[in-house]
Amino acid sequence: MVKARYLAGDLTEKDIGNQVTLKGWVQKRRDLGGLIFIDLRDRSGIVQIVFNPTVSEEALAVAEQVRTEFVIEVSGNVVDRDPQTVNPNMKTGTIEVSISSIEILNEAKNPPFSLSEKDETSEDVRLKYRYLDLRRESMQETFKLRHKASQSMRSFLTEEDYLEMETPMLTKSTPEGARDYLVPSRVHEGHFYALPQSPQLFKQLIMMSGFERYFQFARCFRDEDLRADRQPEFTQVDIETSFMSSDEIMSMTERMLAKVMKDVKGIDVEIPFNRLSYDEAMRRFGSDKPDTRFGLELMDVSDIVEQSDFKVFASAVASGGKVNAINLKGQAQNFSRKDIDRLTDFVKIYGAKGLAWLKVEEEGLKGPISKFFTEDVATAMTDRLDASADDLLLFVADETQVVYDSLGALRLKLAKELDLIDHNRFDFLWVTDWPLLEYDDNENRYVAAHHPFTLPKEEDLDKLESDPASVKASAYDIVLNGFELGGGSLRIHKKDWQEKMFRVLGFSKEEAQDQFQFLLDALEYGTPPHGGIALGFDRLVMLLAGKSNLRDTILFPKTASASDPLTNAPGTVSTKQLEELHLQLIEKNSQS
Amino acid sequence: MVKARYLAGDLTEKDIGNQVTLKGWVQKRRDLGGLIFIDLRDRSGIVQIVFNPTVSEEALAVAEQVRTEFVIEVSGNVVDRDPQTVNPNMKTGTIEVSISSIEILNEAKNPPFSLSEKDETSEDVRLKYRYLDLRRESMQETFKLRHKASQSMRSFLTEEDYLEMETPMLTKSTPEGARDYLVPSRVHEGHFYALPQSPQLFKQLIMMSGFERYFQFARCFRDEDLRADRQPEFTQVDIETSFMSSDEIMSMTERMLAKVMKDVKGIDVEIPFNRLSYDEAMRRFGSDKPDTRFGLELMDVSDIVEQSDFKVFASAVASGGKVNAINLKGQAQNFSRKDIDRLTDFVKIYGAKGLAWLKVEEEGLKGPISKFFTEDVATAMTDRLDASADDLLLFVADETQVVYDSLGALRLKLAKELDLIDHNRFDFLWVTDWPLLEYDDNENRYVAAHHPFTLPKEEDLDKLESDPASVKASAYDIVLNGFELGGGSLRIHKKDWQEKMFRVLGFSKEEAQDQFQFLLDALEYGTPPHGGIALGFDRLVMLLAGKSNLRDTILFPKTASASDPLTNAPGTVSTKQLEELHLQLIEKNSQS
Repeated sequence: MVKARYLAGDLTEKDIGNQVTLKGWVQKRRDLGGLIFIDLRDRSGIVQIVFNPTVSEEALAVAEQVRTEFVIEVSGNVVDRDPQTVNPNMKTGTIEVSISSIEILNEAKNPPFSLSEKDETSEDVRLKYRYLDLRRESMQETFKLRHKASQSMRSFLTEEDYLEMETPMLTKSTPEGARDYLVPSRVHEGHFYALPQSPQLFKQLIMMSGFERYFQFARCFRDEDLRADRQPEFTQVDIETSFMSSDEIMSMTERMLAKVMKDVKGIDVEIPFNRLSYDEAMRRFGSDKPDTRFGLELMDVSDIVEQSDFKVFASAVASGGKVNAINLKGQAQNFSRKDIDRLTDFVKIYGAKGLAWLKVEEEGLKGPISKFFTEDVATAMTDRLDASADDLLLFVADETQVVYDSLGALRLKLAKELDLIDHNRFDFLWVTDWPLLEYDDNENRYVAAHHPFTLPKEEDLDKLESDPASVKASAYDIVLNGFELGGGSLRIHKKDWQEKMFRVLGFSKEEAQDQFQFLLDALEYGTPPHGGIALGFDRLVMLLAGKSNLRDTILFPKTASASDPLTNAPGTVSTKQLEELHLQLIEKNSQS
Repeated sequence: MVKARYLAGDLTEKDIGNQVTLKGWVQKRRDLGGLIFIDLRDRSGIVQIVFNPTVSEEALAVAEQVRTEFVIEVSGNVVDRDPQTVNPNMKTGTIEVSISSIEILNEAKNPPFSLSEKDETSEDVRLKYRYLDLRRESMQETFKLRHKASQSMRSFLTEEDYLEMETPMLTKSTPEGARDYLVPSRVHEGHFYALPQSPQLFKQLIMMSGFERYFQFARCFRDEDLRADRQPEFTQVDIETSFMSSDEIMSMTERMLAKVMKDVKGIDVEIPFNRLSYDEAMRRFGSDKPDTRFGLELMDVSDIVEQSDFKVFASAVASGGKVNAINLKGQAQNFSRKDIDRLTDFVKIYGAKGLAWLKVEEEGLKGPISKFFTEDVATAMTDRLDASADDLLLFVADETQVVYDSLGALRLKLAKELDLIDHNRFDFLWVTDWPLLEYDDNENRYVAAHHPFTLPKEEDLDKLESDPASVKASAYDIVLNGFELGGGSLRIHKKDWQEKMFRVLGFSKEEAQDQFQFLLDALEYGTPPHGGIALGFDRLVMLLAGKSNLRDTILFPKTASASDPLTNAPGTVSTKQLEELHLQLIEKNSQS
């Protein structure tokens, strides 16, 4: 008997008559009419194996001891199934393996939860037993997809002459950006490394080193309070190039993502992707990462209503704000007062003071505020909003940012409720022409909207100090189905521009030198024009796998309190370890 | 004029007549007879460009401002060179580009050291200006090789159904092994993450999760005092499999390394690689990572000399030690007394008390100790050592470990001095049958020779508690040209064996549970038999690139004090940052 190892899920009718050896896990065991049937699972899938006393009484006796998740090695003969027992829902459903010998490689206690896909065990328990949770088919598929996506990008980038390179994890803390994870140095008393928030400066140094084309699947760290879709460590596809324009970098990214979509999902996406300026994205979608798989765009009626008798609208415009509307086509009958109250509560989360509404009837606009509008205003609104009978018009009148935030969020909520989203669609979109700076009211200074190394648009360079708020960045974000997938920019490659940028950000000359002397030095020794992009790889995998939770795409993720229920990290350490690092814990009572 | 971008090093005679645009760095500028010649460098290599007033006076005028390492964009016509000016040492030496336009993209100060390969600037300065040092051709080539090697392995492993997966960096500190780098938690007061020394437990958990085949280019961290060939962070090719035997894992590794050698060096290496047991490696080479590119093997004459009148030899054997010799064939005339004194000083570094020697002449053995040996003993030695006229025999008599350490080191030293090593040869070698445990005299207990999860050889399992010192491990190291390239083992997959192992290592039940409860739990839920290997990737690149320094294979390495002269990491942090982590520095005077 040939004892070649086969894979369960790969067996087909072509294997009928072959002697095969299989190793794997017991997915399910059924006893029926003196026979034992086991669904045997390995990394390739599942096949049914049968223990029959006429084949081997000995094997049958061992099979009787076997339970769910036991690890077994079996040998037997591939046979076709009775037509009545063919399972059309199973890839290997037309065959089974008639077992002549079995060895139990390891036993298993009854798992604390069912490994079926439908099981609804709490996430904390699933994370504690992550090694069981990962055995589920959909988890296995997600990590196969993750592998495939990463190899697809690697092969694209290698083909285009990019080198995969590794930047340090033990780096220096910088005050800009999010909070750093720190690593105390044992050798240098009182000194600390920081784990990188991104390899930003190193990738620029790689360009300064003449490599021209670099990429890395870079682990990045941010010690922030975690939201549902954040993790303390995450992976980004980090790319940097020299001598390329924004358009060339965007085009390269598009070709790479098109290849991934083809390799991983079998989908042809059209390139080039659509582009929106930041201003247009905000104006039309109330968001800098709009989901463009559906309409419900925001429409501005400020100019129409600013002279109206409805004081809420008129005064919002008068005080520099806006009145925007969303038109829910044909939905007037489907939204009760109560529904609209619910939506009003929702927009209040985003700072809106209220949600005005009008229903369109054959005779005109109806609703509590309709009386404030003259026929001219009503007609102009109807035209602007492309309104017809049975439409429901929803308005927010407020400061511009509140209007965008609240209607942008409402737009997403309504699309979900009304099932307007085609979940098989992948809408890639560039958002360009970002503001370079944002004014930080707490710090009383401008801060970099992206980071302090972003190149201003060439035409705005001379406004950097005189009118910082108006300066646009040579920056581009890539959005997929309403998620920010990544972003990039051209970087400053001239020392005097970088110094000017630090000044605008309120750095003293000493601070700039203290933190970034090496960068300023490097800019003097022949730095090429350069730029790049970084894509959130966990996020990309999440969207490709159709998951809604980033934790399902990370092998061993952390909880919202940045802990790992499996290994119980973080843990305590010995006093000796701390002393070697010249550290002690602050006593509770000495902290006040 | 077509303005297609070309690469300098890729231009050939086929491009003659083409209008090309090039972007890159000024490697060298020469002014000659009213013309300016520039060696223009980009990532592909170098081409000569010429500024001729008859082509463009304007371009020539700009070229006059250009200095070394300026970044320029030029356009011009590819022409063939005068036969007299052809440079056969240059890939593009038969052509040059006659420039019609030039733009200076960035200027450069005069570099603090020459970028020529021969420059001997101190490493500290080179690390401070790493972005300049990396522009050297041999550095560029090393990182291209590094990329090629990693993609070669990735493609092999993907082909063989391995999934590339990412394990966490923020993990839990464990007391076994080297010193951890710690990361204080802000959320969990007094708790710390540890950066991984290797993904050992996570790769085992991946097997427990049913993935069967995993790999990762894993960043690993050890906070140890650095030797010349160590770095605080390094990269290992980490591989783990289920259901495979040691032989199968070794065979897979061999095929992978053979592919890398072919893809990167164009060399066909023979597989399977040679294998030596640990005992045999020590006996024949005095080393567990022998360089087998040359002979000079250690030979044991203990049994011959134990009854001799030479007390040094006889007493070494009598007290349980050994007398070993190396035969330097035909070298008797080439080593003076002074040379041998020098070698004696060398072996003393390794604890040897002295180095005895004999020269073989036609008449017999000569030297100060020859008088102690009877003719029978002399004949037996001559036979054993295959000695003939003009050989030099070098002896160490001592405790076994001292004999191995000193003669093992002497063997390497002599091979270098006598130029016995073929530097074009790549000798891969497996060292197998390692001891499972080592006795630690400081801790007064057995410690794991590899790690506490290594599976003992099946036949030794029952001796684990009764005779720990005699137990061999299912472990294998791979050695290349005398460097330990990596190692692996089968792992314990049964809970009771793992518990027994912890007991042998002196862990109390509580300690084992506190540190490894999740592992012991996981072993109860259907853990497959599994094992793997980890290869030092920086080391592999070093050997493939023919470098002698690990720092030349790491993009931004640390110095021996674990600092980075470029960014000045590690650095100080603010009191606020420390307070958020519930930490304070230990005052110097409170430390005593």
